[in-house]
Amino acid sequence: MTGDIRTPVTVVGLGSMGRALAGAFLAAGHPTTVWNRTPDKAAPLVAGGAVRAADPASAVAASPLVVTCLTTFGDTREALGPVSFDGRALVTLNSGIPADARMTAEWAAGRGAQFLAGAVKNVPSAVGARDTLLYYAGDKAVFDEHETTLKVLGGDTVHLGGEPDLAALYEMAVGGTLLPALAGFFQGAAAVQSRGLEASTLVRFTVKWFEMINSILPVFADEIDRGDYTEAASSVNLFHEMAADDDAFGAETGVETSWRGPLNDLVQRAVEAGHGDHSISALVEVLRKPAA
Amino acid sequence: MTGDIRTPVTVVGLGSMGRALAGAFLAAGHPTTVWNRTPDKAAPLVAGGAVRAADPASAVAASPLVVTCLTTFGDTREALGPVSFDGRALVTLNSGIPADARMTAEWAAGRGAQFLAGAVKNVPSAVGARDTLLYYAGDKAVFDEHETTLKVLGGDTVHLGGEPDLAALYEMAVGGTLLPALAGFFQGAAAVQSRGLEASTLVRFTVKWFEMINSILPVFADEIDRGDYTEAASSVNLFHEMAADDDAFGAETGVETSWRGPLNDLVQRAVEAGHGDHSISALVEVLRKPAA
Repeated sequence: MTGDIRTPVTVVGLGSMGRALAGAFLAAGHPTTVWNRTPDKAAPLVAGGAVRAADPASAVAASPLVVTCLTTFGDTREALGPVSFDGRALVTLNSGIPADARMTAEWAAGRGAQFLAGAVKNVPSAVGARDTLLYYAGDKAVFDEHETTLKVLGGDTVHLGGEPDLAALYEMAVGGTLLPALAGFFQGAAAVQSRGLEASTLVRFTVKWFEMINSILPVFADEIDRGDYTEAASSVNLFHEMAADDDAFGAETGVETSWRGPLNDLVQRAVEAGHGDHSISALVEVLRKPAA
Repeated sequence: MTGDIRTPVTVVGLGSMGRALAGAFLAAGHPTTVWNRTPDKAAPLVAGGAVRAADPASAVAASPLVVTCLTTFGDTREALGPVSFDGRALVTLNSGIPADARMTAEWAAGRGAQFLAGAVKNVPSAVGARDTLLYYAGDKAVFDEHETTLKVLGGDTVHLGGEPDLAALYEMAVGGTLLPALAGFFQGAAAVQSRGLEASTLVRFTVKWFEMINSILPVFADEIDRGDYTEAASSVNLFHEMAADDDAFGAETGVETSWRGPLNDLVQRAVEAGHGDHSISALVEVLRKPAA
């Protein structure tokens, strides 16, 4: 292939994220083939120059780089079924647990695919931006070969390591903050609405709050890595004292707060384990299950 | 008082945040009086020029502006006991529910205090910075009179409104994301540690993740204010599908994930209420308790 020719790419799975991925490849001038179980999703991409494959086998055959964006690893294996990759690269971009990433790596090897398992750490509208983060795990040579093409999806493109389940590990570890953080925001939105105020009035303050949380994460991570929780800027006891407010606040504003009970139980267990005066990062000790 | 004289300020409660507040007033040239139940906490501030009051009554008598930084509103009322304010301003900076802020406003009025209830939306080390957010609620005239002095504590100083419980409302509504978000991070830290990786490797990715969350909060807030969840960038069904991974991930990494059960139950209830294809912000509808 000469330097000026963009690598042909196939995108399988055209949900909102898959469409954004295919759109970014198209915009960057890559010959782009698409496939989706319900073909109507492909129409706007085809209008933009993509080729709609008739079936998964021809979708894979069309390009040396196949990117899947289905919901789970299981969906991916099922959609591609018995397709042979014949040395082509398969890059999965979906959520899932590390064990399922490893199983998919074996499955991919059995079909002759070079394999990377990755994740897009942002929303569809951010795909293609210079600062958008995607990370990948698996054979470094495969990553190196396709790095330039993959960077079309986001400028902050990272290879985490050769073990093919590392992106799933980080995806679960990082993504595990999403639903809890959003539930906290939605609870707050319901609370201010109970006073006739708009949820939008919360945004500016919550944005600053998450920026504050971001500013203290390195300290917490360092405490956890050292296993030393004694220099507490925010102690377990402080959170323990605040826990009592949850139900009263819920009662006053008519908002469900019972989902916070198990969180406060973790704090209680940390107090009982002697971490009361320690940093709240000592919760990590409570979250580790005793070896069976 | 002439223009060049800084307003004398009293700070009551010298935990890590109270010491930071008093230190900021001192650094800005305000005559600063301090009081704490255990007097040794005052020593570094006294070395820096603060005056240690012998008791709460003389602490209040020393300044026209009294800032308290005790753990709760109840602690504040108890510490100040029968002290008369004689028209001085009392500004509380602590967490607590709106009902307790209202009770404290009545209590303050009974002691002749002008009253503002506020909150510091950051960590002690950020006190005094230009971008640090503090918000206050209560009599606007009191806020206007002391705004310049209060801005010493953080340049992003906001008056939320005349009702004295509004800062407590926002404090609970905004702060309710903290423990859930941190528990998610600590769970992730335990998970990567289970693979022999450092928790610190999570920080850069999690920081970007919270920045992504910040970028989508205005959309969610707008959906909630309009009550229209039909333009789903991230659907309830998507979260519902991911829920199944939680326990498998916990089992694989030896990390406690049971605290996420009630969160996934909220998602399940949203599906059952017909919100499956709607934006995850529809969780707010599940979080609102039916009127009793």
